[in-house]
Amino acid sequence: QGILERLDSGEIVIGDGGFVFALEKRGYVKAGPWTPEATVEHPEAVRQLHREFLRAGSNILQTFTFYASEDKLENRGNYVAEKITCQKVNEAACDIARGVASEGDALVAGGVSQTPSYLSCKDKAEVKAVFRKQLDVFIKKNVDFLIAEYFEHVEEAVWAVEVLKESGKPVAATMCIGPEGDMHGVPPGQCAVQLVKAGASIVGVNCHFDPDTSLETVKLMKEGLQAANLKAHLMCQPLAFHTPDCGKQGFIDLPEFPFGLEPRIVTRWDVQKYARQAYDLGVRYIGGCCGFEPYHIRAIAEELAPERGFLPEASEKHGSWGNSLSMHTKPWVRARARKEYWENLKPASGRPYCPSLSKPDGWGVTKGATELMQQKEATTDQQLKELFQKQK
Amino acid sequence: QGILERLDSGEIVIGDGGFVFALEKRGYVKAGPWTPEATVEHPEAVRQLHREFLRAGSNILQTFTFYASEDKLENRGNYVAEKITCQKVNEAACDIARGVASEGDALVAGGVSQTPSYLSCKDKAEVKAVFRKQLDVFIKKNVDFLIAEYFEHVEEAVWAVEVLKESGKPVAATMCIGPEGDMHGVPPGQCAVQLVKAGASIVGVNCHFDPDTSLETVKLMKEGLQAANLKAHLMCQPLAFHTPDCGKQGFIDLPEFPFGLEPRIVTRWDVQKYARQAYDLGVRYIGGCCGFEPYHIRAIAEELAPERGFLPEASEKHGSWGNSLSMHTKPWVRARARKEYWENLKPASGRPYCPSLSKPDGWGVTKGATELMQQKEATTDQQLKELFQKQK
Amino acid sequence: QGILERLDSGEIVIGDGGFVFALEKRGYVKAGPWTPEATVEHPEAVRQLHREFLRAGSNILQTFTFYASEDKLENRGNYVAEKITCQKVNEAACDIARGVASEGDALVAGGVSQTPSYLSCKDKAEVKAVFRKQLDVFIKKNVDFLIAEYFEHVEEAVWAVEVLKESGKPVAATMCIGPEGDMHGVPPGQCAVQLVKAGASIVGVNCHFDPDTSLETVKLMKEGLQAANLKAHLMCQPLAFHTPDCGKQGFIDLPEFPFGLEPRIVTRWDVQKYARQAYDLGVRYIGGCCGFEPYHIRAIAEELAPERGFLPEASEKHGSWGNSLSMHTKPWVRARARKEYWENLKPASGRPYCPSLSKPDGWGVTKGATELMQQKEATTDQQLKELFQKQK
Amino acid sequence: QGILERLDSGEIVIGDGGFVFALEKRGYVKAGPWTPEATVEHPEAVRQLHREFLRAGSNILQTFTFYASEDKLENRGNYVAEKITCQKVNEAACDIARGVASEGDALVAGGVSQTPSYLSCKDKAEVKAVFRKQLDVFIKKNVDFLIAEYFEHVEEAVWAVEVLKESGKPVAATMCIGPEGDMHGVPPGQCAVQLVKAGASIVGVNCHFDPDTSLETVKLMKEGLQAANLKAHLMCQPLAFHTPDCGKQGFIDLPEFPFGLEPRIVTRWDVQKYARQAYDLGVRYIGGCCGFEPYHIRAIAEELAPERGFLPEASEKHGSWGNSLSMHTKPWVRARARKEYWENLKPASGRPYCPSLSKPDGWGVTKGATELMQQKEATTDQQLKELFQKQK
Repeated sequence: QGILERLDSGEIVIGDGGFVFALEKRGYVKAGPWTPEATVEHPEAVRQLHREFLRAGSNILQTFTFYASEDKLENRGNYVAEKITCQKVNEAACDIARGVASEGDALVAGGVSQTPSYLSCKDKAEVKAVFRKQLDVFIKKNVDFLIAEYFEHVEEAVWAVEVLKESGKPVAATMCIGPEGDMHGVPPGQCAVQLVKAGASIVGVNCHFDPDTSLETVKLMKEGLQAANLKAHLMCQPLAFHTPDCGKQGFIDLPEFPFGLEPRIVTRWDVQKYARQAYDLGVRYIGGCCGFEPYHIRAIAEELAPERGFLPEASEKHGSWGNSLSMHTKPWVRARARKEYWENLKPASGRPYCPSLSKPDGWGVTKGATELMQQKEATTDQQLKELFQKQK
Repeated sequence: QGILERLDSGEIVIGDGGFVFALEKRGYVKAGPWTPEATVEHPEAVRQLHREFLRAGSNILQTFTFYASEDKLENRGNYVAEKITCQKVNEAACDIARGVASEGDALVAGGVSQTPSYLSCKDKAEVKAVFRKQLDVFIKKNVDFLIAEYFEHVEEAVWAVEVLKESGKPVAATMCIGPEGDMHGVPPGQCAVQLVKAGASIVGVNCHFDPDTSLETVKLMKEGLQAANLKAHLMCQPLAFHTPDCGKQGFIDLPEFPFGLEPRIVTRWDVQKYARQAYDLGVRYIGGCCGFEPYHIRAIAEELAPERGFLPEASEKHGSWGNSLSMHTKPWVRARARKEYWENLKPASGRPYCPSLSKPDGWGVTKGATELMQQKEATTDQQLKELFQKQK
Repeated sequence: QGILERLDSGEIVIGDGGFVFALEKRGYVKAGPWTPEATVEHPEAVRQLHREFLRAGSNILQTFTFYASEDKLENRGNYVAEKITCQKVNEAACDIARGVASEGDALVAGGVSQTPSYLSCKDKAEVKAVFRKQLDVFIKKNVDFLIAEYFEHVEEAVWAVEVLKESGKPVAATMCIGPEGDMHGVPPGQCAVQLVKAGASIVGVNCHFDPDTSLETVKLMKEGLQAANLKAHLMCQPLAFHTPDCGKQGFIDLPEFPFGLEPRIVTRWDVQKYARQAYDLGVRYIGGCCGFEPYHIRAIAEELAPERGFLPEASEKHGSWGNSLSMHTKPWVRARARKEYWENLKPASGRPYCPSLSKPDGWGVTKGATELMQQKEATTDQQLKELFQKQK
Repeated sequence: QGILERLDSGEIVIGDGGFVFALEKRGYVKAGPWTPEATVEHPEAVRQLHREFLRAGSNILQTFTFYASEDKLENRGNYVAEKITCQKVNEAACDIARGVASEGDALVAGGVSQTPSYLSCKDKAEVKAVFRKQLDVFIKKNVDFLIAEYFEHVEEAVWAVEVLKESGKPVAATMCIGPEGDMHGVPPGQCAVQLVKAGASIVGVNCHFDPDTSLETVKLMKEGLQAANLKAHLMCQPLAFHTPDCGKQGFIDLPEFPFGLEPRIVTRWDVQKYARQAYDLGVRYIGGCCGFEPYHIRAIAEELAPERGFLPEASEKHGSWGNSLSMHTKPWVRARARKEYWENLKPASGRPYCPSLSKPDGWGVTKGATELMQQKEATTDQQLKELFQKQK
């Protein structure tokens, strides 16, 4: 059954988690470029992560083609060997995903994301050509459906959807925006309307914000679609980091991004809460993005097991709500084998010298930052900001 | 070169990270039992984790034989299929580790840990027989050396060392204790002395406490050995969780154990600080335990690259001190590509409704806890404690 | 010079701080009733607090007549001796304030605040009669001007202003609302417009929210007045507690109110920041409410000393920006005698087991709460909420 | 009845709170010098604070003679008018205290504290002469007993006790030390022994540390006395600030001292817990030091009312355990009128950008600090520390 048949019949579809963050921690992706050459360089590592998500309950395996557009690989990936072409990366990604999908009953989704071409103001035809290059591979490899994800501008997302629709396959589209809308100020409701009008059957958000904020954004999308009398399935794939202190541009601007986010990682119980809230909001394509590890995906599947009627394979190694602790030798650990315990736990950070929130960076200056840093005039972030501000 | 040749020549040896926590998150280990039947059930998952540690810089691959003693597998692993015998688990673990080790120049270490037999007061001969059963496999599979790790009582650790020494191979011994010493009150310095006298060439601590606390304990061991005029190499494999609020029994007693520890996860920068401090203390076998992911191990290798003269393979996907951010489009993100930035960052938890420290559980009662919980009279932890206390 | 002459000429007028909280801590006011019978019972204590504010820089001494309306004194003050009538309390308050004001050049403001009569739905005439009773005293004692303060409903505030205007004296009006507006949903801008149309020459907010939030509300009032082409002076007298986690009804709903607010108390440096921001926003009547102690008022006066050209008397016992530490014997304490130090300090709570934010109470139920509590069925707040919710 | 008669008969004696911090906030004491010239300059302000403590339950009124030794007034008080002599300050302090004490049944205690003479290495005779000068006033004014308080070195404290004993009056002695002992490394137990041997009938600690830490120190003193077979009454007058992060020298070294300590202020409920613990430890002279306001002293009296059989006068304006809230219009505020509520409350700081603990300053350098700061080479505290460290 295809993705739309599943969703149309009311099925809950569980997405997968984040590849770039997980594989960065495993040693195969470089933070900064965030490009997926690992599909060629270390296919076994990518395959293993797919398998873990499948086992955790993912119904969808997304090809690991994030930032795999030709312009991005050239732009950021200059440390990648030349022979690793855009085509090879995308083909390998498809092959790996399909191979693992066939070990279960998962669908393979080919994914495209925002491009340097758009950000550097290339025109519509040029940007579309970039997407089309990836799409060619997805068609050749016959993925089951397509996802346009991680777009900060609805205009570019619409272009992507238009290209992907050329394939005739179902298209999902998610933006990495919060309740304030896209970078040009288009509110979430309008973004959703434009995406559906462009041909997306599934719309929602991914990345950049935590589950709470992301669901708030999806709610606004839902309301926008209702107001416009449009129908589409809703999708949510948020961060696995708590980001109540984010500004409009999401977690990129947090001082902890990307190498100090650990204290913000959500627990499995946070994810169960998220899965329930997503379900209650009417979201039926529920997954995760950066930070979501296999156990987080399993938490979605476990929370919604009553509705779905089954547990994922990986639950054989997990007791619901900590019940695997019920045999512990210490009674106070056994006492944790209860839903109420984990639901109500306020986990401590173990970091008494750290605050609970950060002020996002982003003081709106681009000129001269590199120069200033090279001149080493600024040795603290505060000084850097001041220097930047003077230059304005 | 063997482990002792390396250490004797002054080489820094980098251990690997924690298997049970990493594989629990990946879906292959059950929290509570914490047994390693994955070596038989899902060898590819275990193999992949070994590979990641090797790639991250580990010089040692420990066989995934934690809690793989026969008594433990029987006691806790009753959910494991009967055909998965102790012998099969240990053999598979050896084969997997050796296979990956041969892809680099790593050594394979066979590991044993504390047993239910000891805790249930079996006598010395019986406990030793349990260790010997695992040792038989290690000898057959010809591991390079042996580790007795995760012992709360030095008495049992000494018995383990005595058994392992029968093989003629070098033996390392680490206890999961803090500065207050073992569960019978033996201080760290005396523990180290007893272990060395029993035949251990390398001594130290693993698990249960964070890097800071663990190094404090190793320091006490070092002083104990010096006072006794004994020589041994020092080893440290701490948690990757901040645990300044732990009591004598370590992180097991923290309310967050084991499913709410996320906010405590150490950053790569925390690990670099730890690696430097361990080195300065004279520790030359530096690794990690629960919570240590491949990128944490890589951080050890990167911090000590000046001393060692080389970077690990996985550093091709990592810029030192965040320098991979130096090409970012946002100047304030580029500004994070500096050592000073990450060294001084106080990462926020994103959890303003949570505290920074917890009071450890453990109110010293065992009788009746299960019954009380079954009667559901106690619905909160506080009530549970009160009921327990009344029973005393 | 009267209040309007001062403000019209561009002068900065500094208000006083909070009496009920300060005198509660000194032992003369009961939390809960919050009534000012101390003016009769312990005039010397009230007088001393007035003096301290005067010395700290207050240009206005408000009569301590908060909740001194007849209906309130009867309603809450039944523990007060019968002979302490509404008239006596108000007269004593006027006498004390005038006595201290004449020691400097301060003005005396007679104040009225919201009434139980309004909350219990008495009609306009009845409510106005309550205000008029206090006004009679203020006229007899010839206060310099009048303040209608601490109103949650603009309707009642307008009635108060109308009554006070009957005196011919200048009238200021402040509401204890946040950016969401009054309890009937009237936004701050509209509140301001109604108050000015009713005759208030000075409008703003007092109490219930911290300085940041209060200034945000005053900003909305300012914008409302501008949009309506109305002119009025702006006034701000916020809490001296940090309350970023407040809901619409302010700090009353915080779990810490009123006996656990200590960790939220603002520092003198927080107040200097507030004074500067208030000034920059165009507020010229700048004071404080609950929690503001004399040293907080002094901080306003010190921050705005450059604009005003003089320091308050109490600054003889205070060095600007900590410079009184410059003679300390310890160099690291001397190092604190700098503006940058205190401006950038992030003061620790010393409470690692406490969170940084609270979820406000207020689950919208009134029926049965008392009964439930009396039945002692609910022993925790959580249980209480659940019981309340069931009753809905 | 004198102090010893009271204590000998098993009575609980309640001390008063801190004058320098309370009067600094009221505008009469300068932080840094901390000298008590207010007794001459503003006797009514000092008198009022005494009255509030008396009303709150204090059985002892300490003369406000802290740092009123001649050498200190000269050393730090050069901003004080010359005519305000040491003798005048001390005499006025005695007169004020006696005046208020006679309004109730309180005793007056004359107090001396550590001297600049000792710190600048003057000899025993010179230091004793300084104490004797203050003692002459106390004898002339006929105080009821004497307190030697706030000593960092037991040697100086012993000298003070010896001088005070010359009067024939009972002598209490408290040191501002923590469990690590005095600045010369003398442990608390030995300090207590020396003080008792020198003639003190009452010994304990005051200032510098929070109630928890202070009681820990008093416990060590008690044990020291027991080991030496000495008898003395125990006394405790701690800070009203949470200071779990203090080093050996107490709160002076905290970065928040003295102008950013607000988030650390203890609640009345913290004080009730302290009073109970002090009582259980056998302490019978229970009071407070810096930060203790009248309502904190009242909390001691209320907690121990069952043992003492009566409430203090100020309790007429305070309901036990928040019961004055039981008439509140909001049920969720009424729900706070319970002991369990306030006992278990974890009060939030309202400061999500601040940490919960600080690292104490004090990096062991004195040379050059002032110069460095004057040269303005160091603009941040970090830079200052680095510069200091280089100089070592």
